[in-house]
Amino acid sequence: MRFQPALDKIPAYEAGKPIELVVREYGISPEKVLKLASNENPYGVSPKVSEIIKEAVYKMPLYPDDSYKALKDALAKVHGVDAKNVIQGNGSDQIFDFATRSILNPGDKILQNGKTFSMYSIYAGQCGADTVQTSSELHDLDQFLDLYKKHSPKIIFICTPCNPIGDALDQADLYTFLQKISPDTMVVLDAAYMEFGKIRDPKKEVKASDVISKFPNVLYTNTFSKIYGLGGMRIGYGIASEEMIRAFYKLRPPFNVSQLSQLAAATALNDRDFVENYLKSNLKEMIRYEKFAKKKGLFYFESYANFITIKLDQAKLDSTQTFETLLKEGIILRNLKSYGLNALRITIGRPEQNDRVLERLSELL
Amino acid sequence: MRFQPALDKIPAYEAGKPIELVVREYGISPEKVLKLASNENPYGVSPKVSEIIKEAVYKMPLYPDDSYKALKDALAKVHGVDAKNVIQGNGSDQIFDFATRSILNPGDKILQNGKTFSMYSIYAGQCGADTVQTSSELHDLDQFLDLYKKHSPKIIFICTPCNPIGDALDQADLYTFLQKISPDTMVVLDAAYMEFGKIRDPKKEVKASDVISKFPNVLYTNTFSKIYGLGGMRIGYGIASEEMIRAFYKLRPPFNVSQLSQLAAATALNDRDFVENYLKSNLKEMIRYEKFAKKKGLFYFESYANFITIKLDQAKLDSTQTFETLLKEGIILRNLKSYGLNALRITIGRPEQNDRVLERLSELL
Repeated sequence: MRFQPALDKIPAYEAGKPIELVVREYGISPEKVLKLASNENPYGVSPKVSEIIKEAVYKMPLYPDDSYKALKDALAKVHGVDAKNVIQGNGSDQIFDFATRSILNPGDKILQNGKTFSMYSIYAGQCGADTVQTSSELHDLDQFLDLYKKHSPKIIFICTPCNPIGDALDQADLYTFLQKISPDTMVVLDAAYMEFGKIRDPKKEVKASDVISKFPNVLYTNTFSKIYGLGGMRIGYGIASEEMIRAFYKLRPPFNVSQLSQLAAATALNDRDFVENYLKSNLKEMIRYEKFAKKKGLFYFESYANFITIKLDQAKLDSTQTFETLLKEGIILRNLKSYGLNALRITIGRPEQNDRVLERLSELL
Repeated sequence: MRFQPALDKIPAYEAGKPIELVVREYGISPEKVLKLASNENPYGVSPKVSEIIKEAVYKMPLYPDDSYKALKDALAKVHGVDAKNVIQGNGSDQIFDFATRSILNPGDKILQNGKTFSMYSIYAGQCGADTVQTSSELHDLDQFLDLYKKHSPKIIFICTPCNPIGDALDQADLYTFLQKISPDTMVVLDAAYMEFGKIRDPKKEVKASDVISKFPNVLYTNTFSKIYGLGGMRIGYGIASEEMIRAFYKLRPPFNVSQLSQLAAATALNDRDFVENYLKSNLKEMIRYEKFAKKKGLFYFESYANFITIKLDQAKLDSTQTFETLLKEGIILRNLKSYGLNALRITIGRPEQNDRVLERLSELL
């Protein structure tokens, strides 16, 4: 049987190592494993969400309301848009999938940052499209513009704050850039970490309602996996023009978000205290990692997210080696070797979790 | 912005009306709504699953183990195959999506039954492929073969037992048909209702391990939405050759099934009593609907699933009208008018639910 030739070229996505794997492979008991590898919320999920999900288990047999009205109304209110501008996804990943499939054909191109979320390129590859990327680690919009003019990509992916680096664009710079992009080019603005960014520096804030009204070619995406602590529930969303949302709906499978996931998400939006406490802790603990890196003379990227990426000194240490040493002890961080960086990405944990990581890193680095 | 021209032709999927909508639109209190429209399990979910999900809410923040090892090992054991032959999906819908996208290009064709699950054609349409279908209501394999020779479809979809009709093929007839199909043509065998079928007539049973070892071009799909009562959790799976599963993995988004969904599914497999009791009740209650239809002189399709499709007398009654009358009373059935049938599809409920439906149908039909 002949499958799509485009599939031959697609690499497998490398996820953060799950706790189950470390338990299986190294025989470490689950309670001793500390995973700070996938930018999950170290405080878990709002107790309000836990309570409502326990009460809602009787809904598991029932298909969700396929209009997702309750959730979309809630998201529309939070973002100051109409529900017609919103589409829910099985993670924001599914929104990237809709975006690429709605517009890309074999031979088309996408443009992205040199270091960025690896799934953009994989989804584009599934459509037979090629990826053009900048040579820079930080988002360099001048280089983006040069490559845009040279390659005419159908989609530009901008991740701000950016995973796995942590840098974020100023809204003003982004808008200046967007003004130079044709309205026929889709610009995907992955804002998964936006709430962390704007609390550190309000200049980094890009509002969905504002950006889509000024630039109808922009797709704003966000997720419940980070500040809302629902990574395991697979729920994200896109906000865009009605026209774009309508096209995505043609690609949306029915019941694309689970019954409990949509309920968890709609509930999570109502516990603002939980989010605010996490954001405060994240910033405070981030500074501990920055101080540590400075003290050790290690380069780190200033981060507007819930993780910090620290480069190791190549002459002395290989990130793979450090990653594996820690893994065997039950500490799971993210090795960025596959991104071409001799660096570790560490999710900012709770204070006591960071104590454990910083203590071991002090010894190893 | 120019979206894929193929999207223009795609109709929206029409889901069974959710309880939420009837509550919203007709002001009926939720406990008075009876939904027998989407072939959900009327007994809900195994209590063992409910218990484990309540205890597992703390896992919501964590991305699932992306290898889905626990679930795939359990499915492999149940079906007598290797875990390498299994892929999990966000509903079996996602497996159909992988199948179509792995092989179809604009201008290609799929072949399906005249009346069948409407998503096959929608997924094919998303790839720009056209749908050829038989003119018959029941699966007519001679007609399938004629159309196969004439149109050379890349994929043949066979749903047995078939939704929304309820008929099922004998395994022997299916195998005779499969022997005549080129190994380069993918055959998708949607077995969502297989467990209901084989209890009514063992000749209808098609085993995944057997069919994929004899016919490596067959993709067997099944779901946790029906006998396991997990429709709201969005979890299905495909079983096929390692080669086919590998191709699908190239299209699989990471974390495609939620943390709680995979746990619910793996747990559901272990409560066989729950399933057996449901299967017994389903068959017993099905016979009540058959007796009712016979008494009223209405045609019904003999059903090997958990629903029955009864045709109305076109001269006397329109199914849309009857459907809407019942809807306003809070009884949700499935109107098959959009399938070109003046018929209602009724999910077989619990005895007391069927009492209510049969009483009203006696008055209306």
